Amino acid sequence: MADRTRGGIDLGGTKIQTVIVDESQKVLGSARAPTPTDGGPADVATAMASALREAAKQAGLKQTSALAGIGVGSPGAVDQKAGTVSGAGNLPDWAGSFPLGPTLSEALGASVAIGNDVGVATDAELALGAGREVSSLIGVFWGTGVGSGIVLDRRPWHGRGAAGELGHTVVKMGGRRCPCGRRGCVEAYAGRAAMEARARKRQAEGKSTDLFKLMEKHDRTRLTSSIWARALERKDGLARELIDDAIEALGAGIASAVNLLDVEMVVIGGGLGIRLGQPYVERIEAAMRPHLFVDDRPPAVRLAELGDLGGAIGAALLVDEHQ
Amino acid sequence: MADRTRGGIDLGGTKIQTVIVDESQKVLGSARAPTPTDGGPADVATAMASALREAAKQAGLKQTSALAGIGVGSPGAVDQKAGTVSGAGNLPDWAGSFPLGPTLSEALGASVAIGNDVGVATDAELALGAGREVSSLIGVFWGTGVGSGIVLDRRPWHGRGAAGELGHTVVKMGGRRCPCGRRGCVEAYAGRAAMEARARKRQAEGKSTDLFKLMEKHDRTRLTSSIWARALERKDGLARELIDDAIEALGAGIASAVNLLDVEMVVIGGGLGIRLGQPYVERIEAAMRPHLFVDDRPPAVRLAELGDLGGAIGAALLVDEHQ
Repeated sequence: MADRTRGGIDLGGTKIQTVIVDESQKVLGSARAPTPTDGGPADVATAMASALREAAKQAGLKQTSALAGIGVGSPGAVDQKAGTVSGAGNLPDWAGSFPLGPTLSEALGASVAIGNDVGVATDAELALGAGREVSSLIGVFWGTGVGSGIVLDRRPWHGRGAAGELGHTVVKMGGRRCPCGRRGCVEAYAGRAAMEARARKRQAEGKSTDLFKLMEKHDRTRLTSSIWARALERKDGLARELIDDAIEALGAGIASAVNLLDVEMVVIGGGLGIRLGQPYVERIEAAMRPHLFVDDRPPAVRLAELGDLGGAIGAALLVDEHQ
Repeated sequence: MADRTRGGIDLGGTKIQTVIVDESQKVLGSARAPTPTDGGPADVATAMASALREAAKQAGLKQTSALAGIGVGSPGAVDQKAGTVSGAGNLPDWAGSFPLGPTLSEALGASVAIGNDVGVATDAELALGAGREVSSLIGVFWGTGVGSGIVLDRRPWHGRGAAGELGHTVVKMGGRRCPCGRRGCVEAYAGRAAMEARARKRQAEGKSTDLFKLMEKHDRTRLTSSIWARALERKDGLARELIDDAIEALGAGIASAVNLLDVEMVVIGGGLGIRLGQPYVERIEAAMRPHLFVDDRPPAVRLAELGDLGGAIGAALLVDEHQ
């Protein structure tokens, strides 16, 4: 194998996606596993290591220690230097700090670089995907939560380390309760975790839906992006209602961010964004329109080109940055 | 007079503020005039020239042609090169384009540089005011409308030319109608023009208020910042209700911008911001708190240090940039 073969791991609230890429970011192998829903950070790390080994096997690598390095995109607050992750609220029992980098490095026999999940996915779209030819963009990752990465003058903007919380911009004062505890955030309407909680509540109130039947039928314990997609295909009333709400909130929140930053492009990714695809990107674009202040030259709105693998490929890009 | 004596004009929706400053931005003279409420752009330009002559006289200047240049901060879309301003919706009959720079230059016998009003006011706070020691900030100008200027890494961020429309970020989907025609924008609750329209409506509905009596008593044709301040001092119920709504919307909108950009500081200026002063800056800060995603290290929230003159001083700074 070439020296620059690297691993990338995208740690999501629902799934772990891993890739092995060569020096030109070509994907040599990939694997996916569900994110453990119970246990703790150590169990998540074990599942991550296992999924990376699977990708390495698929790429024909005998040992992960042959990799030039492994990059990880993680939710929560990342300390790049220490390799720790804290406050990853969508992951099991992960409120405190956990040494994810050192743990994975020991398990896999390679150096590990950690970055913010939406940051690395945004970087990947900027370097290799939909954002190759623009200088400013907002990457919106619509999944368990709603994250975003901001690129201005082709450089990521991190603020004091926590920029990009588009999911926690307020689109309805006094509105729906968000998993973050606040009210009226975009994520309260559009985050898959919030949508699932709302679906359970609406069902308990007597609203009929096939969402949970589909979940059981497909052996899931959560309403994954695929379950939402299937329910929409069947024109499930509750699924439609909640996705409509999500799109309305995403439209208002993204348009507000555009009014503030006047970027050239919006890239829609994330588990739900990728799974629902282009027709829903167009619905989000239409939902933005009524709120755009400069409405005669809206930003381009694009589906993330790297699809489901974008986060993991972006994570692999971290290896070069850190060496 | 020194060679670097310059003029600055801040063109607001309610008033025109002019200054004469020396090379170290010391104010040598200043004058203020109401913005004409009827007529058209040419009448506004005449009032601006007259107010600048008044400031020059106060500074002991015989002729405005002795100035090294004059800077103008204007609402609407500014073409710096052509010196034109278009789409200044809060000014009389100013939807189209008007050659404000050339008109003023001819009237005053000096070169004129035009910039965006909130942009120059933000630059002034960054260079000389509350933002001297931070590298990132959002300047929020709470007046006839709600504008904002964004500074990242000590440089203004303009996007494709129209960044900073914090006033038109959505804080309540389906909410109150904004003067821009959209719904639920921050400015729909906090812009003085929207607040006045709402006060008239609430009065017509039978709500008692002294706002319009105070306006007449003080010989105004609009609810100026001073009228609002007086009504609040008298504990006028409607004034309190509308200011409470404004603060709630500003809190949600500014906190959302902070969640997105994670800047170090928020500077509150504008006619209402300056007139209501520190106690209301603290109320805005408190209204932001419930919405801040990273709530253990909120940004500093400061009153604009340059006060009412900030926009005009910032406008004068344009002269050096353009020579």
